[in-house]
Amino acid sequence: MSEPSLSMDKPALIRALQRVLPERLIIHEDEALRPYECDGLSAYRQVPLLVVLPENSEQVQQVMQCCHQRGVPVVARGAATGLSGGALPLADGVLMSLAKLNKILDIDPLNRTARVQPGVRNLAISQAVEAQGLYYAPDPSSQIACTIGGNVAENSGGVHCLKYGLTVHNVLELKVVTASGELVVFGAAALDAPGYDLLALMIGSEGMLGIVVEVLVKLLPTPQRAQVLLAAFDDVSKAANAVGDVIAAGVIPAGLEMMDGMAIRAAEDFVHAGYPVDAEAMLLCELDGANDEVSAQLAKVRQQLLDSGATEVRTAKNEEERALFWKGRKSAFPAVGRISPDYYCMDGTVPRKRLAEVLLETSRLSEHFQLPVANVFHAGDGNLHPLILYDANKPGELKRAEDLGAAILELCVKVGGTITGEHGVGHEKIHQMCVQFSAAELTQFHAVKHAFDPLGLLNPGKAIPQPRRCSEYKSLGSETLTPPSARGV
Amino acid sequence: MSEPSLSMDKPALIRALQRVLPERLIIHEDEALRPYECDGLSAYRQVPLLVVLPENSEQVQQVMQCCHQRGVPVVARGAATGLSGGALPLADGVLMSLAKLNKILDIDPLNRTARVQPGVRNLAISQAVEAQGLYYAPDPSSQIACTIGGNVAENSGGVHCLKYGLTVHNVLELKVVTASGELVVFGAAALDAPGYDLLALMIGSEGMLGIVVEVLVKLLPTPQRAQVLLAAFDDVSKAANAVGDVIAAGVIPAGLEMMDGMAIRAAEDFVHAGYPVDAEAMLLCELDGANDEVSAQLAKVRQQLLDSGATEVRTAKNEEERALFWKGRKSAFPAVGRISPDYYCMDGTVPRKRLAEVLLETSRLSEHFQLPVANVFHAGDGNLHPLILYDANKPGELKRAEDLGAAILELCVKVGGTITGEHGVGHEKIHQMCVQFSAAELTQFHAVKHAFDPLGLLNPGKAIPQPRRCSEYKSLGSETLTPPSARGV
Repeated sequence: MSEPSLSMDKPALIRALQRVLPERLIIHEDEALRPYECDGLSAYRQVPLLVVLPENSEQVQQVMQCCHQRGVPVVARGAATGLSGGALPLADGVLMSLAKLNKILDIDPLNRTARVQPGVRNLAISQAVEAQGLYYAPDPSSQIACTIGGNVAENSGGVHCLKYGLTVHNVLELKVVTASGELVVFGAAALDAPGYDLLALMIGSEGMLGIVVEVLVKLLPTPQRAQVLLAAFDDVSKAANAVGDVIAAGVIPAGLEMMDGMAIRAAEDFVHAGYPVDAEAMLLCELDGANDEVSAQLAKVRQQLLDSGATEVRTAKNEEERALFWKGRKSAFPAVGRISPDYYCMDGTVPRKRLAEVLLETSRLSEHFQLPVANVFHAGDGNLHPLILYDANKPGELKRAEDLGAAILELCVKVGGTITGEHGVGHEKIHQMCVQFSAAELTQFHAVKHAFDPLGLLNPGKAIPQPRRCSEYKSLGSETLTPPSARGV
Repeated sequence: MSEPSLSMDKPALIRALQRVLPERLIIHEDEALRPYECDGLSAYRQVPLLVVLPENSEQVQQVMQCCHQRGVPVVARGAATGLSGGALPLADGVLMSLAKLNKILDIDPLNRTARVQPGVRNLAISQAVEAQGLYYAPDPSSQIACTIGGNVAENSGGVHCLKYGLTVHNVLELKVVTASGELVVFGAAALDAPGYDLLALMIGSEGMLGIVVEVLVKLLPTPQRAQVLLAAFDDVSKAANAVGDVIAAGVIPAGLEMMDGMAIRAAEDFVHAGYPVDAEAMLLCELDGANDEVSAQLAKVRQQLLDSGATEVRTAKNEEERALFWKGRKSAFPAVGRISPDYYCMDGTVPRKRLAEVLLETSRLSEHFQLPVANVFHAGDGNLHPLILYDANKPGELKRAEDLGAAILELCVKVGGTITGEHGVGHEKIHQMCVQFSAAELTQFHAVKHAFDPLGLLNPGKAIPQPRRCSEYKSLGSETLTPPSARGV
C-alpha cells in the first residue's frame, strides 16, 4: 500500500491528539498497531499511521477536528469483520476504532426502538430486548462479533433480509460526526423525515461521508413460530428455479438459502447436520409468523418445492433439528475453509429469475480459471456468495482467484444485477464499480462525496473509483479475463 | 410570487425549445398557462413562464440541456395533486409536466416488479397487475389521480404504509435526467446497489436533484384476506393510547386510522358509513394476510381495543361494509370541506406514544387561534393530518390558519417528531425546516443539492431554506405564535 507522505509529521499529530484524548486511547507504536492492519478481507493489509479509540462522541468530534485541520485522512472501523476491505487502514492515516462506544443508551418497547452506540454488537441488541419479546432483524453471519456501526457502513443484510430488509430498512435515525467534526442528526424517530434522505444516503456509504456515533434501530416482535424446510435437488438449476417458484406462489419466506453439492458435503463433514450428501443442491426455507399462518405456508411451500422438482422435502422435526439445519448453513464458510488452504468469498446480486443461468455460467468460469467454486447463498434475494477455493502459497493462484471473482461480478452486472449484496465495495471491488456505473454516475457519486467531505479525508480510495482509473481498468480489457462463453450471457 | 427576471428572453427560449420539441408540446400563451398555476395546495399560485410536455426521456434530456445552457429554472410535476406546493411554478421558470410519459413498460411477475414511466397513475399500476394476483402497496388518498413520479418526488405514503412502507421502500430503481440533461440510473433490479444510496436520496427530494423518467417498482402479492375493525371511544386520549397498545401487543395492522368526533360526524353526514356519531374518536384497524392469521389477529386486536377503553368494537359484516367503512375515511377531507368554506390540511409526524398529548395540545392551540381543527390521520404511523377550518373571505383567517398550522408542526418537532409524514415540505413548510434542523444540517442539505444541481435550476426555493432565511424567521420569534401552554410540552 501507500507510504506515509513526507509532509506527515507523526510526532506532531500525536501531540495534537494527546491534547484531546487521554494517552491510553492513542496507539502509535509499531507492534501495537499490527492487529489493526486488516479487516475480514485479510488478503489486503496495511499498518495505519496510528490508531485512536475514542470513548464518546465529543472525542470523535475532537479527533475529526484535529485531523481536519491537518489534512490527515481517517478510516473508521467497528469490529473489522467486513469482507470487502472497507476498513483497510492507510499508511498515512488515522484508524479510528469505535469499539469503545459500546453502550445501549435506551430501549423503548412502545415505539419499538433502541438507541445504541456504533460499537454495540449486532446480536447484543436482540439479546438486550429479548425479554420484551422483541429483536433486531438484520442478522449477518458475523452477528456475534460485528457491530451496528459497521452494519450501517456496509448496509449489512443476513439470512432474514428477504422478509425483513437490509440495515437501511431497520434504522430510523443516525447521529453523525462530519469530516470537519460537526455533530449532525439524519432521519427521525418518526415515520419520515423532511428534506433529502441523508439517513439512507449515509447507510452503506462505507465510512466515506461521516462517522456514525449513535444509531436508533427499529425492533420487531419475535414471531410466534419459526419452522424450516430442507429440500434436496439432483440439479442446481432446478433448485435455482424453485426459488422463484416459491416466491411467485405468494409466500415471502423469512429466509431462503441455497447450498450446492460441494457446500453441502463440506458442511455435513463439519457439523453433521443430517444434510443430503448425494444432492447437487439444497434449499433451506424458513417460514415465520403466527402458528396457523406458518402451518399453512409450510404445506404450500412443501408442495411447491416438490412441483419444482425437489427429490426430498423435510421439515425440521423439532427446534433442535431446526437449529442444526441452520448451524450447517452458518458453518458453511468455515466448512469450505477445511477443504481448501484458502477461499475467497464473493458477494454479488442477480434478479431471482436469472439465478439458474448465473450458477451455470459460474461453473463454466470455474473450469476456465481452474479453481473450484462452492455456492452458499441468500437465494431468495438473488444474493450470491460464491466461495472460490485457492491456495495462496501456489504462485499466481490468488491473482487467478481475484480474476475469477471479478469475472463473476461482471457476469452479475450483465444479467441486470449488482456487484454487492451486503458486503460493500470497499477496497476489493472498486474496479467492478467501473463496470456497474457509467462515467456520469461515478461523477455524481464524487459530487456527493465532495458535498460531505470536500478535502477527501474520510476513508479515501474506497468504494468509488476515479473515472480516470476506470478508463485505465477498461483499457486493460477486463474482457480478456472472461471466456467468450460468459460474454454472450 | 416573483416576476420574470429582466434577462429572461422568453421568445428566444421558446425558439430554442421548438428546436427540440414539437410545437404542440410547448404551451406559452397566458390563457393556456393558467391551469398550471398551482398544485393541490391552491392557496399558493403562480403562472409559469411556459409549460413543456415531453413525450419521452430523450425530450426531457433535451429540454434540460436547453434550460441548463440558458440558466432557466425548471419545476417538474406529475398530476399536481401534491399538498405542500412542491410543484408550485416559477414566474421565470419552465414547468415540465410529465403527464405524457404515461406508459407501463414492463411487468415481471416472477421478479415481482413493474417498470413504469413517471406519469403512470398510482392506481393504474395495481390495476395492471391485478390479474397476476399482485399490487403496488403505497396508496395515497389521491391514488386515482396522483402519478408515480410525484409519489417518488414526495416519498408518498398512504393508509397501508404502516405495514408496507413508504414509496422509498417500494421502489428498486430510477432513471433520472440530471440538471445538465444527462441520463443516469440509481438503484438496481437486484436487492442492493453498490455505491452511495442515491436511489433513496432521490426519493422524497421534491424534484430538486433530478427529473425521474422511469421507475422500477416492487409488487406485492394480494393478501388472501383483509378485514377491518371499527372501534369507538368516548375520549380522544383513550383512542390515541389504544394505537400504541395494539402495536405493543405484537400486531402490525395493514392500516390503523383515527378520526376525531368532528371528522366522524362530517364523514357520516356525507357518506352514511354507519359511523358512531356520538363518539369522540374512532379507530379503523385493517388486518390482512392469510385467512387464519387474520382471524387470530382480529380476536387479539378486538380484545386489546376493549381493554384500552373502546366503548364499542365492530367487525365489518362483509366486504361491502368493509368498503363502506373505508369510504367514510377516504371521504373525510371533502366531508370536512362541506362544513367549512375552506380547510387547510397539515401533515406532521410524532412518535406513537406522544399521540395523546399532541392531540390535546392541538385542541388547545385550536382554541387559542380560534379556528376549529378536525383530525383524520394515519395513527399507526403517528402521522397526523389536522384539518384547520377557516374562511378565506374573512380578513386574516388564512394567515391565522397558516400560523396555527406552523404552531402544530413546531409542536410535532418538540415531541421528537417531524414536520412532514408524506406530503413533503414544498413551498408550504419551508420555515418549519428551520425548526427541524440545525444550521449544520441545512448546510449539508445545500451541499448535497449543489452536488446534483450546482446552478440551482431544479425547483429552486422549495424544501430547503437558506440558513440566512432561517435566522430571519427565528428572529421574528415563532414562539409568539405559540401560546405559553404549548411551549412547555
